[in-house]
Amino acid sequence: MNASNIQIVLVNPSHPGNIGAVARAMKNMGLRQLVLVAPRQFPDPEAEWRAASAVDIIHEARVVGTLDEAIAGSQFVVGTSARDRRIPWPVQDARLTAKRIVERSVADKVSVLFGREDSGLNNEELRRCNLHCHIPTHPDYESLNLSMAVQIVCYEIRMTELEGSLPTAEDAHWENAFATSQDMEYFYEHLEDTLIDLEFLNPNAPRQLMTRMRRLYSRVRLDDMEVQILRGILKETRRLVRENNNK
Amino acid sequence: MNASNIQIVLVNPSHPGNIGAVARAMKNMGLRQLVLVAPRQFPDPEAEWRAASAVDIIHEARVVGTLDEAIAGSQFVVGTSARDRRIPWPVQDARLTAKRIVERSVADKVSVLFGREDSGLNNEELRRCNLHCHIPTHPDYESLNLSMAVQIVCYEIRMTELEGSLPTAEDAHWENAFATSQDMEYFYEHLEDTLIDLEFLNPNAPRQLMTRMRRLYSRVRLDDMEVQILRGILKETRRLVRENNNK
Repeated sequence: MNASNIQIVLVNPSHPGNIGAVARAMKNMGLRQLVLVAPRQFPDPEAEWRAASAVDIIHEARVVGTLDEAIAGSQFVVGTSARDRRIPWPVQDARLTAKRIVERSVADKVSVLFGREDSGLNNEELRRCNLHCHIPTHPDYESLNLSMAVQIVCYEIRMTELEGSLPTAEDAHWENAFATSQDMEYFYEHLEDTLIDLEFLNPNAPRQLMTRMRRLYSRVRLDDMEVQILRGILKETRRLVRENNNK
Repeated sequence: MNASNIQIVLVNPSHPGNIGAVARAMKNMGLRQLVLVAPRQFPDPEAEWRAASAVDIIHEARVVGTLDEAIAGSQFVVGTSARDRRIPWPVQDARLTAKRIVERSVADKVSVLFGREDSGLNNEELRRCNLHCHIPTHPDYESLNLSMAVQIVCYEIRMTELEGSLPTAEDAHWENAFATSQDMEYFYEHLEDTLIDLEFLNPNAPRQLMTRMRRLYSRVRLDDMEVQILRGILKETRRLVRENNNK
């Protein structure tokens, strides 16, 4: 991906707060090129406030009078659209659109257009696009806030960029090694001996107690440190039992 | 997925505008259960204004004094976290977290916690969680706005719910059938004849013209209607050539 080949274009945004929120959403996901087509109110302190630490994106934003100026140099133009069109256009969801954007950005300039808060992009604007992007919102309430739509598309662009490099295991960044089967067998022996010492387990009528304990601990991947801690507790418990018996 | 088993919990939110934006983000993605733990300012007109057509979510929100009250009935608790922890905890990105949430929601109550605007969830709160969720923002600016974080997680929950049911082809909802190879061959013949009539193509020195035209039209999947339109143009062109020759 070449992030500097991707520009986010807001067509006639009404609320400066949304412009600020868009700048932050972009920077959070590693994009920096913002183009504003005839914004109603800009520059504006609310845009700066909502941008927070992305105020540099706001200051570097390119402000133009028409969509044509905004996209003149782009080889691939994507338009976000909520509505069904009378003439269907090539359309993909945000995830697949992001893949197209990332692929194209390697060699080409890409524009991603977002329309007005109340009415989106009009038909004339949507006809300038190679691809329409649809975010599959819930039928109870289809209309996303402008900056939320930008956030989702920018997030998908970043996820595409990171594809294959994100860990999938929930314990991928664990600080300790995980216990081996042999470690676990020593632990279960130690546990069983301790439960017998405690007279909690009757070796002549063990029922399913150890099976249940095995099922419990095998559902977690215990790490070395955790096995040490548990065995430390068992050792201390057995010491106490012996001390008690000697009294 | 059972959406009514999933609740979004905001811990000590400061800005009522964010509460409204969260309500809208939830409803856009089909979630409705919002819990507010000791919000600084709520109810508030800005929350209602930012919620837009999700104001019903605001009115139905459960306001509680402590996190314990919020999650008492939950069997699976997820906490969103930006920071690396001293003791690593099970952690997954928003996409994989959403899969876990959707799976668990079928049978269990699930809480998804989001922390304060400035400082997130504290260590005590993060320790109440079965899983931490991390959104992989860009190192230039890691800190997402609260409502944006909620939007991304809710979007991933909806995408998980829709998995397998979304069309992947960009022309999945086309209104016309696509042209067959036979249709295309008739079209190319018609095109070639017309270009010869126009004396644009010299059949004795055709060079690569038809190959280039084939390459052009084979890069689009022409539909029946488009082939008809193009052949209509060719027919009209040939008629004009003949008329001209007869003068």
